[in-house]
Amino acid sequence: MKSLFSETTRTMKSSLIRELVASTRNIEGLISFAGGFPSPKTFPKETLAALYQEVVSNEGASVLQYGASEGDSELKKELFKWEGYDLGQDKMLITVGATNAIYYMTRALVDPGDVVICEAPSFLGSLVAFEALGADLQAVPLDLEGIDMNALSEKVEACHKAGKKVKMIYTIPDFHNPAGLTMSYVRRKALIEYALAMNIPILEDNPYSRLRFSGEPVPTLFRIAHEEYRNNSIVMEVVSFSKILGPGMRIAYAKGDSELIERMCSWQQKVNITPDCVSQRVTARFLSGGYMQPHLDKTCDFYRPYLNRMLSAMATSLPPYIQYTRPEGGIFTWLWLPEDMNADSLFEKAKAHKVSFIPGSKFYPSGQEKFNCLRLNFSYSTVEQIDAGIKALGQMMEEFYT
Amino acid sequence: MKSLFSETTRTMKSSLIRELVASTRNIEGLISFAGGFPSPKTFPKETLAALYQEVVSNEGASVLQYGASEGDSELKKELFKWEGYDLGQDKMLITVGATNAIYYMTRALVDPGDVVICEAPSFLGSLVAFEALGADLQAVPLDLEGIDMNALSEKVEACHKAGKKVKMIYTIPDFHNPAGLTMSYVRRKALIEYALAMNIPILEDNPYSRLRFSGEPVPTLFRIAHEEYRNNSIVMEVVSFSKILGPGMRIAYAKGDSELIERMCSWQQKVNITPDCVSQRVTARFLSGGYMQPHLDKTCDFYRPYLNRMLSAMATSLPPYIQYTRPEGGIFTWLWLPEDMNADSLFEKAKAHKVSFIPGSKFYPSGQEKFNCLRLNFSYSTVEQIDAGIKALGQMMEEFYT
Repeated sequence: MKSLFSETTRTMKSSLIRELVASTRNIEGLISFAGGFPSPKTFPKETLAALYQEVVSNEGASVLQYGASEGDSELKKELFKWEGYDLGQDKMLITVGATNAIYYMTRALVDPGDVVICEAPSFLGSLVAFEALGADLQAVPLDLEGIDMNALSEKVEACHKAGKKVKMIYTIPDFHNPAGLTMSYVRRKALIEYALAMNIPILEDNPYSRLRFSGEPVPTLFRIAHEEYRNNSIVMEVVSFSKILGPGMRIAYAKGDSELIERMCSWQQKVNITPDCVSQRVTARFLSGGYMQPHLDKTCDFYRPYLNRMLSAMATSLPPYIQYTRPEGGIFTWLWLPEDMNADSLFEKAKAHKVSFIPGSKFYPSGQEKFNCLRLNFSYSTVEQIDAGIKALGQMMEEFYT
Repeated sequence: MKSLFSETTRTMKSSLIRELVASTRNIEGLISFAGGFPSPKTFPKETLAALYQEVVSNEGASVLQYGASEGDSELKKELFKWEGYDLGQDKMLITVGATNAIYYMTRALVDPGDVVICEAPSFLGSLVAFEALGADLQAVPLDLEGIDMNALSEKVEACHKAGKKVKMIYTIPDFHNPAGLTMSYVRRKALIEYALAMNIPILEDNPYSRLRFSGEPVPTLFRIAHEEYRNNSIVMEVVSFSKILGPGMRIAYAKGDSELIERMCSWQQKVNITPDCVSQRVTARFLSGGYMQPHLDKTCDFYRPYLNRMLSAMATSLPPYIQYTRPEGGIFTWLWLPEDMNADSLFEKAKAHKVSFIPGSKFYPSGQEKFNCLRLNFSYSTVEQIDAGIKALGQMMEEFYT
């Protein structure tokens, strides 16, 4: 069969993280900071169980039937209400999770060889999708306020000089996965102005912005473009319910330019026909029933102590030459190690000490890796495990220099 | 934004059927034989409502979480039980409806310009997906027993002579959409033997085989290859629950060669991550609870009178020079008109008489159309509408020659 595979399928990479995680699966008593799943303790099971029952029983003739490829109009209506502004149904598409929206946008814009700009580091799941569609991935470093604007414009200029088309800028501005960073308001405006000037669409990946445990929210790139630049086209925002409701329901939405949404919907017709109509309507009823805000408050209350414990454990137990981000939400933090400390080697050592994390190199396009960094998840371990695991990591780092 | 669209997205076709159906939307009192949706009266609403409630309440921590990209192992277990033979989990992939499986298989095998053989006529939804992925679609006519084997081998030979790679043969052997035909057992064996000899995988699209209202079932291509040729690789069978449970749940599965399944799963990771985990588990519980067979019996009992009425109306009211298929199940029948009678013109005339159907030309790859044929659906109208609509159609055909 292999001889019949298409070119892209033959060369497609599998997830390195999957293999890493598999390599620690049988370690008894493992303290894992490697995961990226939400805690099942946050799922509003009973409310959802009742809503599923109601929706299928009362609206079965509609939700068990084929739905519109653009998504359930009732869900779209509730989403616009939730966000506080109605863009019109033709500017929104419901998808099977955020990755699905990212895939459609990439299909709609990118011919093999076209450039997609991503942040360095960035979310691996999106990077492999971009690469599988033949994108030339170019990574631009992050500083403490977000994507480095000078590096971005240099990179775009170099691409243009090389005769390449730059088709989009992919960013995760809130509680970045893996870097834990939130892009500053000033940087968001600079990025929008740059994108408008260069006519390069921004893909704003937003799975975490509503998981804010402290501090003031920064408006999304989409909202800033909408409110301050009267522009609904330059940013395509993708919002996922995976981290705030339940990833098993596979509900996300994209909003932005109506022409682009129409083409993404054309791809949806050919790939999925429509997302699950039952879970779409249940999500609509979860919003219209007023369950979302109390649920989000509860979820943030649940995660907050884990983040706080992680921050204090890092302050106490990591050597002073380790830099790390101090997020106000999300589920990840990110460590910068000294340049001569390789996190891939540290991973092997930590595994022997029954601690795991994801080495930072896995979050860069091939050939553009950094090795002195790593990602820590704080939503899956107990607070005692956080203390013990970070203490062990700190000791391993110290030993590196003895 | 348009200037940024990728090449395939710019040239992609939208569904002609969608536009046709839209053109009849506001006709009051329309008798429609155009649809392809199952009747919502067949949806087992109350059973599903209870199962959704139970599954989310009792198994929420699992089904609301990210699931495996290859699909829920509990559902796969139940599917193998249902089918009566266990191939092993690595030979099955759960997908977001059948189109999704067809898309992944095409992505896994077809480079732009590679040939996909389809039947003429064939299911438009699949044809547009093949074309969007750059396949060179080559149509092979059907006779009363299924795909014409001489025409098939001539077509494949011609493709090979032209230096083209033939990557798969796409067939709908049971209650074919749109042709209403069921491929004979003898023809199935001939097709499998040919595919084995030529090493060309068969994509067996199977949404309707369990909607049999009379007569004896013919084993699927997959089962014949499995049982009589001890081969699990040459046929990839795609089974959908859209016509036998509810299309809104978006559940289908593909089974076949494990290497190919693995690559299709790699695409699923990049496109959807996983299908809806709640609806997957509900489908598993529907099967394990023993609800499926009684539900199928009831569904067949529901549709049977409509098919019978359609067959007797056609026998009574159509002119003797009209050929039509006499299906024993499914939801479609197909008419062959005299060569000089154009069904696209007939459609316009019928619309004026408040009757609609789909002209057959819409079910062929571009440039390979036949115009003297049409598809009739019998699952959406009342029996009175069937009588009146077929009578009106018969009269219009007679008038064609006066």
